[in-house]
Amino acid sequence: MHRLYDYLPSGNGYKVRLVLKQLGLPYELIELDIKVGATRTPEFLAKNANGRIPVLEIPEKGYLAESHAIISYLAEGSALIPDDAYQRARMWQWMCFEQYNLEPNIGTVRFWLKMLGKTRVELGEKLIEKKKSGYAALDVLEDGLRERNYLVGDQFTLADIALYAYTHVAHEGGFDLAPYPNIRSWCDRVSSQPRWAPITSP
Amino acid sequence: MHRLYDYLPSGNGYKVRLVLKQLGLPYELIELDIKVGATRTPEFLAKNANGRIPVLEIPEKGYLAESHAIISYLAEGSALIPDDAYQRARMWQWMCFEQYNLEPNIGTVRFWLKMLGKTRVELGEKLIEKKKSGYAALDVLEDGLRERNYLVGDQFTLADIALYAYTHVAHEGGFDLAPYPNIRSWCDRVSSQPRWAPITSP
Repeated sequence: MHRLYDYLPSGNGYKVRLVLKQLGLPYELIELDIKVGATRTPEFLAKNANGRIPVLEIPEKGYLAESHAIISYLAEGSALIPDDAYQRARMWQWMCFEQYNLEPNIGTVRFWLKMLGKTRVELGEKLIEKKKSGYAALDVLEDGLRERNYLVGDQFTLADIALYAYTHVAHEGGFDLAPYPNIRSWCDRVSSQPRWAPITSP
Repeated sequence: MHRLYDYLPSGNGYKVRLVLKQLGLPYELIELDIKVGATRTPEFLAKNANGRIPVLEIPEKGYLAESHAIISYLAEGSALIPDDAYQRARMWQWMCFEQYNLEPNIGTVRFWLKMLGKTRVELGEKLIEKKKSGYAALDVLEDGLRERNYLVGDQFTLADIALYAYTHVAHEGGFDLAPYPNIRSWCDRVSSQPRWAPITSP
């Protein structure tokens, strides 16, 4: 059975938990509180030298870090990954965009404000920059969902799970999704999938 | 024939050019100067709403953005991607790490100092933070190369190309690789590969 090292409020961890649930795979959850340095201990760094959750422990294989590496490993051969090579590459395009443009802005602001309880005054210019980049990422996502039900082809894929994770809780970092009708209806479609679960559920 | 929209000093573009060269695939190069907004025109935004190079135009398919999505599409079925599912996932782990931890720090500082000609004084606290995060990424990479020739298995893969792109020019952003013997010898191994080319070569 897989073992998942995770922190329940994490959107990156949520991607993995949602894929495990979608695929009906049982797993053991090891919760670690990233706010008190539980992923920076020598014991954890031996599992992932980058000191971050999620980490999947795979029986007879070893450890695997990085949410998108984990979900693509778990979902290989399933309907969550398109069969067509170009569509599969477009799925990765969205997932790379998420890690570079969306998560470091929308996910980080949520972490600062909601998890660490930092104030707007304290964050100052850093917060203003992250908000600007976060809204730019939302603009790209809104455009990518124009006249589409899902991000790639007309199929619910890992791209939808990966982008949904931090987008649907963007308001927890003070982002307003009101001007993004495509994103809002897509979020509803994702959360209406069978075997869906809310972000903090184990 | 593939068409590549690119900016030659870009490490992300270099990853794609190096994979095309490794695979012996001919392509047409369209150079765009990102410093003067050539990727923010309506014409280019129709190709990639995120306004970034590299973008690959694939005959009879369409456009594909994000360097790692492009190289995994191009290299599918080649020796640059491990056959084993776990090793392939480990390759993606390193590539995700690069986009989240290495490129935004080491690549961005190089862009600020070398391409935009900004000064250390002008950048201030932002530069200090990026340098700190960049060195933390180099620490993880150094650890990952301990007693190994390549990042994944004992095979030269897309992970080596992806991580090499910005690491081997880290000095252009003021990063000192002297304390990283594993990284330095791995850089030598990568640049000794057949069909290698320097970063700015078309």
